[in-house]
Formats: sequence, structure tokens, C-alpha cells
Amino acid sequence: MHFADRLNERISTVRSRMVIGIDPDPKRLFAPESKLKAAFPGKSDEYLLNAFCSTIIEVAKTRAVAVKPQAAFFESMGIFGWKALSLCIRNAQKHDVPVILDAKRGDIGNTATAYAKAYLDPESDFFVDALTVNPYLGPDTLEPFATMADKNGCGLFVLVKTSNPGSGVFQNLEVHDKADAPPKAVAVKVAECVSNLGSGNIGQFGFSNVGAVVGATYPKHLELMRKVMPDSVFLVPGYGAQGGKGEDVKAAFYPDGSGAIVSSSRGIIFSYEKQEPGEAKPGQAGIYEAMARAAEKARDDINSVALNLYTN
Amino acid sequence: MHFADRLNERISTVRSRMVIGIDPDPKRLFAPESKLKAAFPGKSDEYLLNAFCSTIIEVAKTRAVAVKPQAAFFESMGIFGWKALSLCIRNAQKHDVPVILDAKRGDIGNTATAYAKAYLDPESDFFVDALTVNPYLGPDTLEPFATMADKNGCGLFVLVKTSNPGSGVFQNLEVHDKADAPPKAVAVKVAECVSNLGSGNIGQFGFSNVGAVVGATYPKHLELMRKVMPDSVFLVPGYGAQGGKGEDVKAAFYPDGSGAIVSSSRGIIFSYEKQEPGEAKPGQAGIYEAMARAAEKARDDINSVALNLYTN
Repeated sequence: MHFADRLNERISTVRSRMVIGIDPDPKRLFAPESKLKAAFPGKSDEYLLNAFCSTIIEVAKTRAVAVKPQAAFFESMGIFGWKALSLCIRNAQKHDVPVILDAKRGDIGNTATAYAKAYLDPESDFFVDALTVNPYLGPDTLEPFATMADKNGCGLFVLVKTSNPGSGVFQNLEVHDKADAPPKAVAVKVAECVSNLGSGNIGQFGFSNVGAVVGATYPKHLELMRKVMPDSVFLVPGYGAQGGKGEDVKAAFYPDGSGAIVSSSRGIIFSYEKQEPGEAKPGQAGIYEAMARAAEKARDDINSVALNLYTN
Repeated sequence: MHFADRLNERISTVRSRMVIGIDPDPKRLFAPESKLKAAFPGKSDEYLLNAFCSTIIEVAKTRAVAVKPQAAFFESMGIFGWKALSLCIRNAQKHDVPVILDAKRGDIGNTATAYAKAYLDPESDFFVDALTVNPYLGPDTLEPFATMADKNGCGLFVLVKTSNPGSGVFQNLEVHDKADAPPKAVAVKVAECVSNLGSGNIGQFGFSNVGAVVGATYPKHLELMRKVMPDSVFLVPGYGAQGGKGEDVKAAFYPDGSGAIVSSSRGIIFSYEKQEPGEAKPGQAGIYEAMARAAEKARDDINSVALNLYTN
């Protein structure tokens, strides 16, 4: 089944446009004062990491359109982290939660094909539903990813305009395409490439399997990008801990609430750290409850924006 | 010791500016007709992969300034590949061969720090001497890598102008910095950032620990980039199988032969595939000999260019 169709059906089923980012920062998980550690006394770091991921997936099952493991944190834990990532991916898929691996890969020629095989080939230990990719090396370097995604019903999310403070330094540089036309940002040139790359594989809901990453922290760019990439699903990071608000992501959506999924990581997955004593059950149940509550809050906030229920 | 100093000392010791790229393409290594398979009859894929990598390192010991494992190929083999990568890195370092991991990572904020921890922290399973990174997300996203590299005597190679056919689509876009100045390519803006990022950490040979990837396939860009990034060591891919010739990389070097290292992968590591029967010893020794001969040829070709011995 087409990736964008799967995503759209899941949005209807769980009534959620929220993606939970899985960012297992070892500094927070394994710190001496970690509440996760306290919830599983005497357990190994490996156990804690797997418990953390599976709790998030349990939360995501009925509340998230997808989960987005952040490869960097798993990679920072070495072999041990890669095993946990593989387990996390399988566990999510076992529960029908789509997995978008946030790995921001990109390389040339047969090296790009190797990355595509690593993440978009059903034979791989790390086979996921979709992958984030970096466009800097050029459109020819995105094609091997798109070919593999097309073949295996997977999706791509190409970095177009990222959510960090310095994203504009290169992405907003203005280029003069034609002598008598107004200048365009580099990110717009990338967006045109993304739109073109996905144009050959449009699903029944009208969206292609090549999506775009556009940060919630730049609402005006979201609006422009929605026009340049009409058929792309937007994966919108920067909501929540990074400062993006519900209202900021409005422009990513079409009036029918389609067109975007919004990612939140730290605000949900570390919500249990902020619990006051007595506020929830201690231990694993308390962690689950805190995450579930934070996830529902984000889900409802994003839905209310996507469905144009905001009145102001 | 400063990364650029280590590199420069190694250039003197082994009299080589050639980096051997380790691209263990499983399709070539494990194919039924693979000569590697024939050299190690009855051995597992894991054994073959480790034997392939350790043969390359044996070749590199006295002939290469560094080895450059390509993360993508290891990643494409899943957990098994990551274990082999870790072993390959340790093996190279045991033999004092510097390791540049070609992983082209890049992400924002604490995620970039997680990637830096994965590859530039001595505690990691995958601790290497230097890492390739992607600049598209902005200068702020390169800083966590630079901070970790500074702390642990490591280097970075930032993608500036890549060697693939479509590299110019975004990298060559012309931007107007100032109204009355000539336009600059996006890659030049990235190069200015690279130069700036490395300016605080210059080694005793005059080079910073923040280098740049500039492809051999664009000789004119090499010349320009040498001026924009005077203190950066260039890692030059695209020589050999991708079509770059010795003469093409001339502009990357200073007259004293410093300033660049040139990477060759397939032309060296798969040279044994092309051996005629009877041309060399069969088995492992034959594979080693073919690689060593190809490596020496590339080393001498690059040296003759770097040392201005070309007469035409």
C-alpha cells in the first residue's frame, strides 16, 4: 500500500496528526536521579532503554499517527543502541504504528543505494516505513532512495526548511533563477525538486510518497512551502520543546485537515520527569500516564489547528 | 595531538596523500562468483567481511594516509555490519592508520551532539579520528561536532562540493551577498562557514581540524575552494572509479604538497576482481597483492601531482 495512503488511513483511524519522536537521550535515561531508573529498580541500561521505547510505542498505539525514532541517540549508544533501535522498530510495526526513522541520510550513487537498502528494504534489520533524507548533495542523490521507497511502499521526508535557529544561513540564501523573476530561497529550490521527485507516485488521497521536513518554527515558510509542494506530506518538527505552537503549524494543513503530520519529542517522552510526587502512580504506570497525557494534549492541540477549530 | 598535525605527520611517514575508501558492497563481496569467497572457501559472510576490511588495512598500513570506511555499506548489513565496522575501526587504529568515517551526518542541537558522541567520543564503540558531516542544516548544527572534535583531537570534513554529477544543482546556485558584488555559489558560502568554524583550532602545520570535502570531478571548484578555505585540509573524493584523474586534483594542493588527501575506493579495494588467472597468487595473498599494487599506483600518481612533478 502507498505510504501516504497508509498515513492518511492511520490519521482517520487514530484521529491524530501527531508523531511521537523517540529521542532516547542516554544522559536523561540513565542518570542517577532518572525516574525511569527508579521505576525499574536494579535493571540494566539495556532493559531501561527497551522499556522506554516500548512505553512510548504503547502510548503511540492509539494516539499517534507514527513514531519517529531519532537515529542519532541510538547510534550514540553503539552496538547496544542499534540492537535497541531494531527492537523498537519491530515492536512499533507489530502494533501497526508506522515508523519514520529520522536519520537524515544522504550520499551519492551506489552509496545512496546502500543507505536505501539499510532502511527501505524489507530484508534489513532496520526496515522502516519512511526515512528522512538530506538533499544537499543534489537531486541525483535522492533518486536511489525514491526508487527503493517506490518499490517497497515506503516514504521519504526530504529536509527542506529545518527548525533550528541557524537553518536560514544556507536554506534562506536567495538565488536568482531568471533575470527578470524575483529571487527564490535555496529551500524553495529544494522544495521544487521534492515536488518533482514525488510527482510520479501519487496515492489515492492525492499525496506523493516523497514528503518534506518543514519546521514549525518558521510559520511563513510553511505557508510558502505548502504552495510549492502541493502533493507532499509535511513532517513538521519544532512543535513543543523547540518553541513551535499549534497556531504556527496551521499553514501546513489543507482545509480538510490533511497534508501534514507534526512531531513532538521531548515534551512527550520526558513528560514523566516533571511529575510532582503523588501526581500519578509511581513506577512504569506513572511514566506511561504522564506520556499519554502529554501525547493527548499535543494531539488535541494539533487536531484543533488542523481542523480549523481555532476561532482567533 | 591535533588532527591535522597527525595527518601531516602521517603524510611524511608513509609518503602518501592517498586515502583508501572502505566500501564493502555486499553484492560484490558475497556474490556466488566472488573471488573473495573463493579465497576463503566455506567461510561465513561475517568472516569474509572482516577479512576484506583487514586486508585493506594491511594494505593501508604502509601505503595510505588514512582509511575511509563508508558507513552506508556497513549500515546496509544491519547489526552484523555495525559489528564489522567497529572491528574495522579498532583494527585500523591498532595499526596507527587514521580512520575517517564517511557517514555524512548532520542534525540540530542536542541531536547533533548525540551524533558527535557516537563517532568523536573515545567512549564510543565507533570512535574515529574524523567524520564527514553535512552542512545543509546550518552552521549552528556543525558546532556540536566541532566542539567534540576539538575536545578529543578529532577532525571534521564538511561536505562543500561533492563529486556526483548533480552536485551543482543546489551547491552551484548563485547567491547575491551584496548588491554590488559578484554572485557566489552556495558551496562558497558553505566554504566560508567551514573556514570560519576551523579558525579557532589551527595546528602547528597551519591547518585547522575542520576540513572540507571537495570533489576531484570539479577541478575549477577545487581551485576556487583552495582560496576560500586556506587553512582547511581537503578530502578529495571522485579520483579513480568516478573519473577524476591525478591532474584534476592539482589545485587542492599547496606547492609544498600539503593541503589535501585524495580518496580512492573501488579502484583499489575491488582491484582483485579484475585479475587475470595466473597474474598473481590465488587466494588471500593474491587479493592483498592486487590491492597493494593498485594502492601504490594511486599513491604515486597523487604524489607526483602534489609534489608538482608533472611536466605537462
